Amino acid sequence: MKLSKSDITRHNDSLFKNHKKKYDFLKVEIENLDEITNQIAAYNVAVPSWALGAGGTRFGRFGFGGEPSNLFEKLSDIGIIHALTKSAGAISLHIPWDIPENPGEIKKHAEQLGILFDAMNSNTFQDQENQKYSYKYGSLCHVDKDVRQQAVQHNKEVIDYGKALGSKSLTVWLADGSNFPGQLNFRRALNNTLESLREIYAYLPDDWKMFIEYKPYEPNFYSMVIQDWGTSHFLASKLGKKAFTLVDLGHHLPNTNIEQIVATLMMDGMLGGFHFNDSKYGDDDLTVGAIKPYQLFLIFNELVYGMKNNPANNPVPAWMIDASHNVKDPLEDIIQSINAIETAYAKALLVDQEALQEAQMRNDVVHCQNILQNAFNTDVQPILAQARVLNNASINPIATFRDFDIRKKLIDERGVETTATGL
Amino acid sequence: MKLSKSDITRHNDSLFKNHKKKYDFLKVEIENLDEITNQIAAYNVAVPSWALGAGGTRFGRFGFGGEPSNLFEKLSDIGIIHALTKSAGAISLHIPWDIPENPGEIKKHAEQLGILFDAMNSNTFQDQENQKYSYKYGSLCHVDKDVRQQAVQHNKEVIDYGKALGSKSLTVWLADGSNFPGQLNFRRALNNTLESLREIYAYLPDDWKMFIEYKPYEPNFYSMVIQDWGTSHFLASKLGKKAFTLVDLGHHLPNTNIEQIVATLMMDGMLGGFHFNDSKYGDDDLTVGAIKPYQLFLIFNELVYGMKNNPANNPVPAWMIDASHNVKDPLEDIIQSINAIETAYAKALLVDQEALQEAQMRNDVVHCQNILQNAFNTDVQPILAQARVLNNASINPIATFRDFDIRKKLIDERGVETTATGL
Amino acid sequence: MKLSKSDITRHNDSLFKNHKKKYDFLKVEIENLDEITNQIAAYNVAVPSWALGAGGTRFGRFGFGGEPSNLFEKLSDIGIIHALTKSAGAISLHIPWDIPENPGEIKKHAEQLGILFDAMNSNTFQDQENQKYSYKYGSLCHVDKDVRQQAVQHNKEVIDYGKALGSKSLTVWLADGSNFPGQLNFRRALNNTLESLREIYAYLPDDWKMFIEYKPYEPNFYSMVIQDWGTSHFLASKLGKKAFTLVDLGHHLPNTNIEQIVATLMMDGMLGGFHFNDSKYGDDDLTVGAIKPYQLFLIFNELVYGMKNNPANNPVPAWMIDASHNVKDPLEDIIQSINAIETAYAKALLVDQEALQEAQMRNDVVHCQNILQNAFNTDVQPILAQARVLNNASINPIATFRDFDIRKKLIDERGVETTATGL
Amino acid sequence: MKLSKSDITRHNDSLFKNHKKKYDFLKVEIENLDEITNQIAAYNVAVPSWALGAGGTRFGRFGFGGEPSNLFEKLSDIGIIHALTKSAGAISLHIPWDIPENPGEIKKHAEQLGILFDAMNSNTFQDQENQKYSYKYGSLCHVDKDVRQQAVQHNKEVIDYGKALGSKSLTVWLADGSNFPGQLNFRRALNNTLESLREIYAYLPDDWKMFIEYKPYEPNFYSMVIQDWGTSHFLASKLGKKAFTLVDLGHHLPNTNIEQIVATLMMDGMLGGFHFNDSKYGDDDLTVGAIKPYQLFLIFNELVYGMKNNPANNPVPAWMIDASHNVKDPLEDIIQSINAIETAYAKALLVDQEALQEAQMRNDVVHCQNILQNAFNTDVQPILAQARVLNNASINPIATFRDFDIRKKLIDERGVETTATGL
Repeated sequence: MKLSKSDITRHNDSLFKNHKKKYDFLKVEIENLDEITNQIAAYNVAVPSWALGAGGTRFGRFGFGGEPSNLFEKLSDIGIIHALTKSAGAISLHIPWDIPENPGEIKKHAEQLGILFDAMNSNTFQDQENQKYSYKYGSLCHVDKDVRQQAVQHNKEVIDYGKALGSKSLTVWLADGSNFPGQLNFRRALNNTLESLREIYAYLPDDWKMFIEYKPYEPNFYSMVIQDWGTSHFLASKLGKKAFTLVDLGHHLPNTNIEQIVATLMMDGMLGGFHFNDSKYGDDDLTVGAIKPYQLFLIFNELVYGMKNNPANNPVPAWMIDASHNVKDPLEDIIQSINAIETAYAKALLVDQEALQEAQMRNDVVHCQNILQNAFNTDVQPILAQARVLNNASINPIATFRDFDIRKKLIDERGVETTATGL
Repeated sequence: MKLSKSDITRHNDSLFKNHKKKYDFLKVEIENLDEITNQIAAYNVAVPSWALGAGGTRFGRFGFGGEPSNLFEKLSDIGIIHALTKSAGAISLHIPWDIPENPGEIKKHAEQLGILFDAMNSNTFQDQENQKYSYKYGSLCHVDKDVRQQAVQHNKEVIDYGKALGSKSLTVWLADGSNFPGQLNFRRALNNTLESLREIYAYLPDDWKMFIEYKPYEPNFYSMVIQDWGTSHFLASKLGKKAFTLVDLGHHLPNTNIEQIVATLMMDGMLGGFHFNDSKYGDDDLTVGAIKPYQLFLIFNELVYGMKNNPANNPVPAWMIDASHNVKDPLEDIIQSINAIETAYAKALLVDQEALQEAQMRNDVVHCQNILQNAFNTDVQPILAQARVLNNASINPIATFRDFDIRKKLIDERGVETTATGL
Repeated sequence: MKLSKSDITRHNDSLFKNHKKKYDFLKVEIENLDEITNQIAAYNVAVPSWALGAGGTRFGRFGFGGEPSNLFEKLSDIGIIHALTKSAGAISLHIPWDIPENPGEIKKHAEQLGILFDAMNSNTFQDQENQKYSYKYGSLCHVDKDVRQQAVQHNKEVIDYGKALGSKSLTVWLADGSNFPGQLNFRRALNNTLESLREIYAYLPDDWKMFIEYKPYEPNFYSMVIQDWGTSHFLASKLGKKAFTLVDLGHHLPNTNIEQIVATLMMDGMLGGFHFNDSKYGDDDLTVGAIKPYQLFLIFNELVYGMKNNPANNPVPAWMIDASHNVKDPLEDIIQSINAIETAYAKALLVDQEALQEAQMRNDVVHCQNILQNAFNTDVQPILAQARVLNNASINPIATFRDFDIRKKLIDERGVETTATGL
Repeated sequence: MKLSKSDITRHNDSLFKNHKKKYDFLKVEIENLDEITNQIAAYNVAVPSWALGAGGTRFGRFGFGGEPSNLFEKLSDIGIIHALTKSAGAISLHIPWDIPENPGEIKKHAEQLGILFDAMNSNTFQDQENQKYSYKYGSLCHVDKDVRQQAVQHNKEVIDYGKALGSKSLTVWLADGSNFPGQLNFRRALNNTLESLREIYAYLPDDWKMFIEYKPYEPNFYSMVIQDWGTSHFLASKLGKKAFTLVDLGHHLPNTNIEQIVATLMMDGMLGGFHFNDSKYGDDDLTVGAIKPYQLFLIFNELVYGMKNNPANNPVPAWMIDASHNVKDPLEDIIQSINAIETAYAKALLVDQEALQEAQMRNDVVHCQNILQNAFNTDVQPILAQARVLNNASINPIATFRDFDIRKKLIDERGVETTATGL
């Protein structure tokens, strides 16, 4: 199943006139509209290899027909999304769920689809068949050196896979932690983790980056070794210049001001990666922007500001969608996520930064709020559509996806009962 | 200080052309636009008498010049907001902060400004000078019958004041609760409260309503006698048909799904009142829509649906803004709140309810989300402006407020050091 | 694997002297000690059939050797716990995980172990093989009547199984809800649920009870149809006298005052069941008392008070442990849970209710707190041990479990790779 | 009003025999009991000068008779608590609420009462009369350099007052932050704060320490400049070796694992100060141990471990009680807090660290939990009483306080209407 450019442009024909009218109207209002459109057009976010199937919870899993059953098919799925949006030009691989048995072939397939290999993800939170030691009681933090070594070795292998594919970064997310007070010695666990990370870091090629993810709880429900950005920052600082903090929107305690964390990390040049999703309660992994679109906008406001005001040389963060899909078609879900990300991004680009600074210097709080809300209230869908038009992508990707009966075709190709690896 | 209609329409002149262009463009898109505009134009929300001055926290209070120092001046302030927006045509009085010493004069002043008297609010959470018994350990729930009687008597007096002014409802918010486990017997406290409410209810005129507010914590930090909607509903059900639950947006535990509570209460015909504000952490009393505008939209979506689908005969809820103003000009803050309320309302009116029902029946979750987000993404500011144009109010109320130097005039009239009663 | 009474009493011999000394010392302090001990000795809590194996999270599952692979073996496991504690004399069955193929045999086995059949649990949150309709989009609340009927029918079957075994109650926990705003019409979902429950209720034998569980989130992450006690109470009130609310300690938003909910429900005669576990973040399903033992004590304080002061005739709640076991031996974990429950219960029995009432009437908050803390600070382990001595159970159940190498014996019998049904 | 040693020992006479019996019984159980008792006897916690009067909330304040109206009387109040407990031998001054007009006299009075001067506290969250610039929009973070300089200058003066009295540390708690998105530029605010702190730090004597407090919200309800330990650690690291993080138990988001933060900071040698209180919802400032005594125990477990295992040379933290007293006699409240702190401390000292380490190395989670719970379940009140006996303090301080009618005497001396400075 592959979407051709001509399929898409043909579908656009019927939508173009109405779109053009809206875009032109907006252009009268917004002086630098084309510039903003170009920035949106240039934006890409990675799709993780485990997000192409239906997810689930500990209470159950409800499959979706036509799920990709190997890495090749997963790339094809991302290829569809990318063809429709031209914003999904990267994949983030999860090892061992998606070991590239034949890297050359995989790389070629990706190339044809216009997809790059973004950050590699290791997995030491599940036991694999034939694995010598269990991660039941932790991996990089484990009290037993042999277990730690196994986990370090796994991360090195993930780097090797990445090198073969052209990736340039490793994301380390650890489920390590404890369920009960007393189970872990907090300090020993953190020290062991630091030592293990040092070994992995030493193995990291010079032009690679390491992203250290944090999370306050789940799957451990009393403590997580890397519970917050402070701990991630602490570890990254000890490791060296290639190590950075990674922010996942769902990995925070209730009411956390995430945009302020983003600002602080960028000020310090330490924001390396960003995982998008949305949530109401915890790590709910819902479609980006589905619950708190204003918070997402505020975060993008900091990201835009941070990239423009960057004395600490913060790298461009590695963007990735990290949602799960329980009640939606995974591909449609990812398209909605991409749309939400670009919506927030476009609105952030609309913020009149100069006027904002000026109002802040006067403590004109009412005006500061108005400036942000004016940008947020603007309907930027025409901008996103125009960016896609520029890229020969679909004006309305979900409509195109449905009009072409893509899910049906995938089911016809692959069957109903397939299951993608992942959670 | 009074704003004349001609002042406002004069100020509108310079803004009208640009506004008209936007409104007309929207009209092409939205078939029933004028109908929606009319609904917005008809909307009014009450301003409480304690919201016209600068508020504060337990850590400090920072005043604002020109605060109204009596009820007459407070009405004048609301008159200014109402002239600018034609959406603030009601006041909610708080006794004893704003006892109408001369009801006739007050009523006349209000009438001239086009302001009605909405729900009356009693206060049994502070001790007043010369008060016989203290509310330190509660009021309607107190272990001592004499204290309860004093609090009941106060509520009756509040009803009397309301009758003199033409109000038709009483809002009972209780700070009653406990700071420490063991301090209160939960059941005795709830029973005492029910008995006290019964006495007040018996005194309520037949055409009045009683609104019972709930709150999980603050100012008591272990328990509140009416901690949630379930408890309020329980009490209201025991009292009778004139008793309803009142929802204050800030009175919920972290992550509460408030829109679902609204839907349930309306289904049961039990939603009597609604207090607007916004918050990130607790009862932060911030400007409406400043933090979670999408949640506000979802709530309005339920309110709109509930008023249209109303087999249980839920009354039109009594709307009130209940925010405090620490770093903004109170009048500008209220204008921002009104704007946020009407923004959410207008977007909720834009929801294609028929398509939504249909998508829900098919479990087309992607489409359900799109329908809501399409409405939310629409820039409805032209609708709000047009509604104000229809009412001879200001196209841009804050700009008008500033252009006319209203705060400066209020300070000139009243001085810098005045302090409005309230928190 | 079965523990004989003589095994246990033999093991007690070495511990008895030291235990006796402590108990006697306590007896000097506490006048009515034996009475309290007898109440503890009479206490039993149900173990659910799905709690005998290692649980897991959506991120992974780490098995435990010797897990029971059928209902017969599960009963045997509970039999071991019951022999050691004489406090686990009931099982709560989960259908279809533990369908009693041969009820007579199962009943006999249970009888021999001294185990009763407590509340039956239906499961409409997972799809079973060969099931006609999917519960992906809900069960009792589903938009499609056929799906609702299937779920109703399942609940009726569960009642039938229960009748065959001597159970007298049905617990309905619904995962029904939505992941995204717009997915569900809240009111239709609640109405459908009410109607479905009505059918099940009509099928309920006259001497049965129905327990309606509530939960704010998970596995749905935007809304749950029965999100809080208020909604459960609302439904139960509509159903009739056999319907009650069930409280699960882990099913609350952050910081909820659960003990107050318990008090309110008992005051209204509506507390039907109680699920024990502990948590720090959400529905963490940790060992009872592992995180917040003082909260558990405060809850028991209400339960004890409620049973003694019971004008509304609240039934004795159906007690059940509802924890999962990821890093502990499930049997040891349940023993720790039982110990925590009885610890809280014993401490609650120690509260000087008379003095507490008297201090409350004087608003002597300092003394109220002291009374509760004095009870809580008392080391009640000798009381629990003595209760077990009276019942010919083990003075130190975990020590006995380990000394007899029970887990090893279970593995020898059943193997390492067995997996118990459940989450 | 001063309590003499003989008053107290006389009162002890009637309680001693029963106390002795309990302590001796415990001694049989616990080998190193006297050693633990000595550690408790040596423990002291500072009382802040603003905690001797009744506090309040933004909703109201309910006074307590006999409040101290100046620093001299405040010292006397702490003297009473110290005489009763011999654990309150330090005061923490808050400037400008308690400026020592005559340092020599104040110092002498304190000396006679056995009270040292602990950390000094600056106040830039309230405006004082005759203050040139307002802190309405921040202090050390303010956009206006003049305001920042005023706040820096104030901190220098606080250091000067401290030098005159023999204090050796400065605690900086900032209310700085914002109520609305856009109000503050996060990075400018943090940079300004860092610069301001650098000036204060430069003024700090060589043998002083600076403690940087963090808080997620209140009195600002969108952002706080120093929102978490990560930000405090970041600032302290930039300042130098005299700068440390200060942990206040109430300054965390819901469900934060505070004990892990404590462990991490001590591992890094960065835990400088500790403010005790308890809370259920936010910064509730309740009596220590009133809500979550097990969490307090777990924190003390880390503190005890951290002081014994201290390669990073973490200083002994400056301990302070930071609670407010709305419904209790402030002096009784502080006594309850001291008791709760020492209870947690004694229980932490009872933890069998060796066995715990050994069980952790085996991942015997059940046993790890048992070790902690065995310590926690022990009734340590006899240890605390014995520690007071050794110090000639009261066996039962609150009973002594009441038997001597101390509050009544204070009211007789000072009157009913006095008001202590503070919140």
